[in-house]
Amino acid sequence: MFTTVISPRFLETDALGHINNTVLPMWFEASRDPIFRMFSPEMDTTNWKLMLASYNVNFHAETMYGTDVEIHTYISRIGNSSFDVLQECWQQGIKTVSGTTTMVHFSHQNKKSQPIPAHVLEQMKEHLLPANQ
Amino acid sequence: MFTTVISPRFLETDALGHINNTVLPMWFEASRDPIFRMFSPEMDTTNWKLMLASYNVNFHAETMYGTDVEIHTYISRIGNSSFDVLQECWQQGIKTVSGTTTMVHFSHQNKKSQPIPAHVLEQMKEHLLPANQ
Amino acid sequence: MFTTVISPRFLETDALGHINNTVLPMWFEASRDPIFRMFSPEMDTTNWKLMLASYNVNFHAETMYGTDVEIHTYISRIGNSSFDVLQECWQQGIKTVSGTTTMVHFSHQNKKSQPIPAHVLEQMKEHLLPANQ
Amino acid sequence: MFTTVISPRFLETDALGHINNTVLPMWFEASRDPIFRMFSPEMDTTNWKLMLASYNVNFHAETMYGTDVEIHTYISRIGNSSFDVLQECWQQGIKTVSGTTTMVHFSHQNKKSQPIPAHVLEQMKEHLLPANQ
Repeated sequence: MFTTVISPRFLETDALGHINNTVLPMWFEASRDPIFRMFSPEMDTTNWKLMLASYNVNFHAETMYGTDVEIHTYISRIGNSSFDVLQECWQQGIKTVSGTTTMVHFSHQNKKSQPIPAHVLEQMKEHLLPANQ
Repeated sequence: MFTTVISPRFLETDALGHINNTVLPMWFEASRDPIFRMFSPEMDTTNWKLMLASYNVNFHAETMYGTDVEIHTYISRIGNSSFDVLQECWQQGIKTVSGTTTMVHFSHQNKKSQPIPAHVLEQMKEHLLPANQ
Repeated sequence: MFTTVISPRFLETDALGHINNTVLPMWFEASRDPIFRMFSPEMDTTNWKLMLASYNVNFHAETMYGTDVEIHTYISRIGNSSFDVLQECWQQGIKTVSGTTTMVHFSHQNKKSQPIPAHVLEQMKEHLLPANQ
Repeated sequence: MFTTVISPRFLETDALGHINNTVLPMWFEASRDPIFRMFSPEMDTTNWKLMLASYNVNFHAETMYGTDVEIHTYISRIGNSSFDVLQECWQQGIKTVSGTTTMVHFSHQNKKSQPIPAHVLEQMKEHLLPANQ
């Protein structure tokens, strides 16, 4: 599991007074940086190796401004060229949001999916969701 | 079906050169304004009637800067207090993204879900996804 | 003058109930699209001709969700390789925000500023701020 | 001086490959949290004490994804009810962006500016820009 600490930004609230629902995919993408690094250690955006296929986000409780959140990031499925990332947003001991993103190892030059390299699979397995290990 | 025309913003692109995946929930929320209006005709954010429970977003093709998109918004399920909204993003004749959002008619004062009022049900039925009519 | 109509998005509000101050540079950038088109009619982001040097934003009144805004965009200064763009945000007859952005005609390949081409100067002059004509 | 470390988000890049200009006001607002806390130690958004009057942002170099930035925040002017905040964005030893924001101590109930309280002035003076001390 990766843990990322994020300070909610005032601008990320909305008129209802808590964090707007559209902010969570941004926090989740930012918290997948360690997974991007597995594929592109140099974080070179001109040689990007991943494509996002889909995601879902489930809201369990309100997330507030004024207190840090912790994003927990797990690998929850490993396929041949694709994999799932389960992420949870925790604030003051409460899981406020969870979501799963499906990513594909992809060549943006050839516009084709590619098998996940063996050395990346090894790293991914260290972050598998416990139930899936 | 509601149709909303959106001009992609340059800042909504990312280093891969097309619209970043986190932008779609923002376009979809903006395109649900006519549904907000069914519940709160005066758009009064201090008397808001809806809560977002979950959403999913599926990416079918790249969405580009430089050409308008059309968001198509349908009611795809009507429950007692909750309902689903199916939305599609179309650009130059291609459906680039789709997604479903589950909303709940909710009292933010009492923190409780509430049945969808009859006059709103009537309006919703005019925008039902054809397959569900 | 260019006029761009923008529908404020619910997510662009903050906990104070009106549009957050960080949103205005996004609306202003989106409303400079006609100026980008003068330099890059094909809107090709791989052959971009402009660099942003600085901007200022001045808040005169609250901007609200629920009613469209009109962004007015003028050319307020033309230099050799740089120029200024004055923009105003109007909502229900009130100028709520104004700001000036300094842009440079720039070669991202050579990392050097370049004189504004004559055919672009001609187009710019049609949108000069009245006081400057 | 306050120092805030921010990890640029992939979604904050644009098609030119570096951080979009509209992102900086967001980083700067987030980095003013310690100043919000001087006025509202409990960070209670329903009892907010500040209003933003204006800001300017000056771009000196490109800011990149893949490396943290440090935001340096100084008080650069103290008036009766208003004050200026100077902020700089540093990345790998280079000052890439700077900007000044004018804030007003403001009663959102009465819609009136108010003198800065003495206990806040004391705290502000500890963070004065060196040249102004």
